[in-house]
Amino acid sequence: MALMAFVRVPARALPRPWALLRGAALGRTEAAAGISRGARRFGSQRVLVEPDAAAGLAVMKLKDPPVNSLSLELLTELVISLEKLENDKTFRGVIVTSGSAGVFSSGLDLREMYGKKPAHYAEFWKAVQELWLRFYQSPLVLIAGINGACPAGGCLLSLTCDYRVLADNPKYLIGLNETLLGIIAPFWFQDTLVNTIGYRAAEQALQLGSLLPPAEALRVGMVDQVVPEDQVLSAARSVMAKWLAIPDHARQLTKNTMRKATADRLLKLRDVDIQNFVSFISRDSIQKSLQTYLEKLKQKKG
Amino acid sequence: MALMAFVRVPARALPRPWALLRGAALGRTEAAAGISRGARRFGSQRVLVEPDAAAGLAVMKLKDPPVNSLSLELLTELVISLEKLENDKTFRGVIVTSGSAGVFSSGLDLREMYGKKPAHYAEFWKAVQELWLRFYQSPLVLIAGINGACPAGGCLLSLTCDYRVLADNPKYLIGLNETLLGIIAPFWFQDTLVNTIGYRAAEQALQLGSLLPPAEALRVGMVDQVVPEDQVLSAARSVMAKWLAIPDHARQLTKNTMRKATADRLLKLRDVDIQNFVSFISRDSIQKSLQTYLEKLKQKKG
Amino acid sequence: MALMAFVRVPARALPRPWALLRGAALGRTEAAAGISRGARRFGSQRVLVEPDAAAGLAVMKLKDPPVNSLSLELLTELVISLEKLENDKTFRGVIVTSGSAGVFSSGLDLREMYGKKPAHYAEFWKAVQELWLRFYQSPLVLIAGINGACPAGGCLLSLTCDYRVLADNPKYLIGLNETLLGIIAPFWFQDTLVNTIGYRAAEQALQLGSLLPPAEALRVGMVDQVVPEDQVLSAARSVMAKWLAIPDHARQLTKNTMRKATADRLLKLRDVDIQNFVSFISRDSIQKSLQTYLEKLKQKKG
Repeated sequence: MALMAFVRVPARALPRPWALLRGAALGRTEAAAGISRGARRFGSQRVLVEPDAAAGLAVMKLKDPPVNSLSLELLTELVISLEKLENDKTFRGVIVTSGSAGVFSSGLDLREMYGKKPAHYAEFWKAVQELWLRFYQSPLVLIAGINGACPAGGCLLSLTCDYRVLADNPKYLIGLNETLLGIIAPFWFQDTLVNTIGYRAAEQALQLGSLLPPAEALRVGMVDQVVPEDQVLSAARSVMAKWLAIPDHARQLTKNTMRKATADRLLKLRDVDIQNFVSFISRDSIQKSLQTYLEKLKQKKG
Repeated sequence: MALMAFVRVPARALPRPWALLRGAALGRTEAAAGISRGARRFGSQRVLVEPDAAAGLAVMKLKDPPVNSLSLELLTELVISLEKLENDKTFRGVIVTSGSAGVFSSGLDLREMYGKKPAHYAEFWKAVQELWLRFYQSPLVLIAGINGACPAGGCLLSLTCDYRVLADNPKYLIGLNETLLGIIAPFWFQDTLVNTIGYRAAEQALQLGSLLPPAEALRVGMVDQVVPEDQVLSAARSVMAKWLAIPDHARQLTKNTMRKATADRLLKLRDVDIQNFVSFISRDSIQKSLQTYLEKLKQKKG
Repeated sequence: MALMAFVRVPARALPRPWALLRGAALGRTEAAAGISRGARRFGSQRVLVEPDAAAGLAVMKLKDPPVNSLSLELLTELVISLEKLENDKTFRGVIVTSGSAGVFSSGLDLREMYGKKPAHYAEFWKAVQELWLRFYQSPLVLIAGINGACPAGGCLLSLTCDYRVLADNPKYLIGLNETLLGIIAPFWFQDTLVNTIGYRAAEQALQLGSLLPPAEALRVGMVDQVVPEDQVLSAARSVMAKWLAIPDHARQLTKNTMRKATADRLLKLRDVDIQNFVSFISRDSIQKSLQTYLEKLKQKKG
């Protein structure tokens, strides 16, 4: 199982990605999706997975240009990609990074939150929860190689990892800046940030929607290491080697014990959290401000 | 509503301040108290409120000489003053500072805890709880402009704020120093400090009753900024501008979500906490040491 | 009661140390054990207690060569020694240090976890829990004078104290390094570390089994002070004087309120935690790796 085929999972073609994910949760994803393996690389349309069997790791690249917005499809593919790696004993660690220039991920895809039906919002939010639950509790060592801007949901994805290496580029700001858009980071985003930088720094950063440049992100503990831009992957690999020197079983149990209370809090309130999101995002005032924001984005591109 | 009349609320004359506060909780305070508005400034006997409608903020000055002791009356007036600002859409933020030279607040008024009946202790403690609950959960942005000594209850008041600016004067010590007086900071004082400086620093500071000079207070995170004494208000205003740049609704929801668990803990145990206080403070040994302390204070003044 | 006899408690001779400890919990230990007092020093076979009545403190020295492994017997004697000091009003503080050169404590005695019956593992684990519960919640001021290597259970013992002074010797590493041995630090070890160095640093240190040299231990807050090796005790005494300047009653109530939630978590799950330990340690794979490790240790000595 050390060598893998380069296979693109046609996720876009899947009518109901969550039907697939439900299978995935039971370990039946690959069979269900008919994925075969063999050669050097596997992935999906939006997630590129580069295995390094010798090192026991894989590099997972978000590649959904231009800015790796976390759409329902990208979220789904990320979870499936992680699950595949977890089910393959070749891999003990994953470096999560970006294959799109200048951005790690722009965060949740606002188009999923605008002008859709409540059922869509609910499905989307469940996918966001699932991404967090799966990445935050993964038995694999996850190292974020943050090689671009990392706001909002992009920051959340990096916070699920065990370690964060950020490229030393003043444009690569990182933070949960939801309030700047008039929306809010739900309690489990907040919990994750509190666990990372402490209550006081989190309380302030969340209210102000702070986006931190590398030096400041390092100072408050939002990231663990800042390195020159061309050394993000090599630094992530060095850190990974250190983490992989620890016996898996003991490390996994330790991680699980540490993170369980935080994960359980969402699991317990998952449906309420979905309802809250759907009700909040459906408000006229929120829809209007999303519309304004999306139109601005379009004009920028145009 | 941008301009307000200078009105002194005759709180001292009110036979049962909590009857008033109960009205306040229902948004009926002003009607009940017969407060009118109009010109440049409003306030009460002990709390001076200077509105700055253009900036969307008000400066709330504790002015109960000599040391702004948190008596039942001052506590009540602070809560009423805050509530009035919260009910007026002109105001999005409040700078809490002192109008008494050299002291922010000396903390809870020990005379409220000595030689009185249990019912009085209960009423007083409920007022302390109310102050904390209302300030800690205020939807407004609260910035403490700490322009004087800030021990015990004074420190607690500053800790309810969203940000603390401290004057760089070595005499302006800050901390929850209750143990030095032989009394203890209750669990919600402790929780507030833990949320601010972390568990370990709080555990040590609370046991030792540490009063920190400005540089040390900044280092452990008890305050967010230390500035020359004549720049406290201008620094607080600059910080306020930054906080007011965030959409209110998103910021308020974020603050509420972050602080809810801590506030709920007291709400759930409020009556037990009052009983504990009354029973503790009524002990002969505690009364005796308060007596000694109060007599020393008198001699100092005399 | 200021002067004490030098008495060795024949703990090794006790058939059921926990019968004794159960008495201890009810304050009947000394009578039950027939301990008399009088002169300058008391202790047991493995724990030497040097009283300094004038200073109101005692120095408790682990002296179970070569490395102060926390065997069932040493654990029991530590708890009994602490309880004796708690029951004697002469003593308000204890400096916990080592009488064995170069090591504070090597941690839990692995021989107690290998090749024994489940009932033994259960008894041993209950003793580890008891040590933590008694030291973590002691009404006395406990200062750790860490004058040697301080891994795993040794580190835990130091973390129960109110303050840690570490000798500045690069060989004196400190940390909860359980994962390196393929075992895990249970949730209450984790809680104690989180309370000391915060969630993020703890999460990382626990997974990596980090053993920190003095400068790093000081930086993350694992210890409070690093001093030249010959000044550990004098530094601990200076700190103790500061802590003993605080009225006992207020300090004790504050400590109790701060630590109660963490202690209660274990008390509530104590039996489950024992069952988890017995079931984990009884696994063939764990027994095999302990065997390998113990054989290596023997060869080293031989």
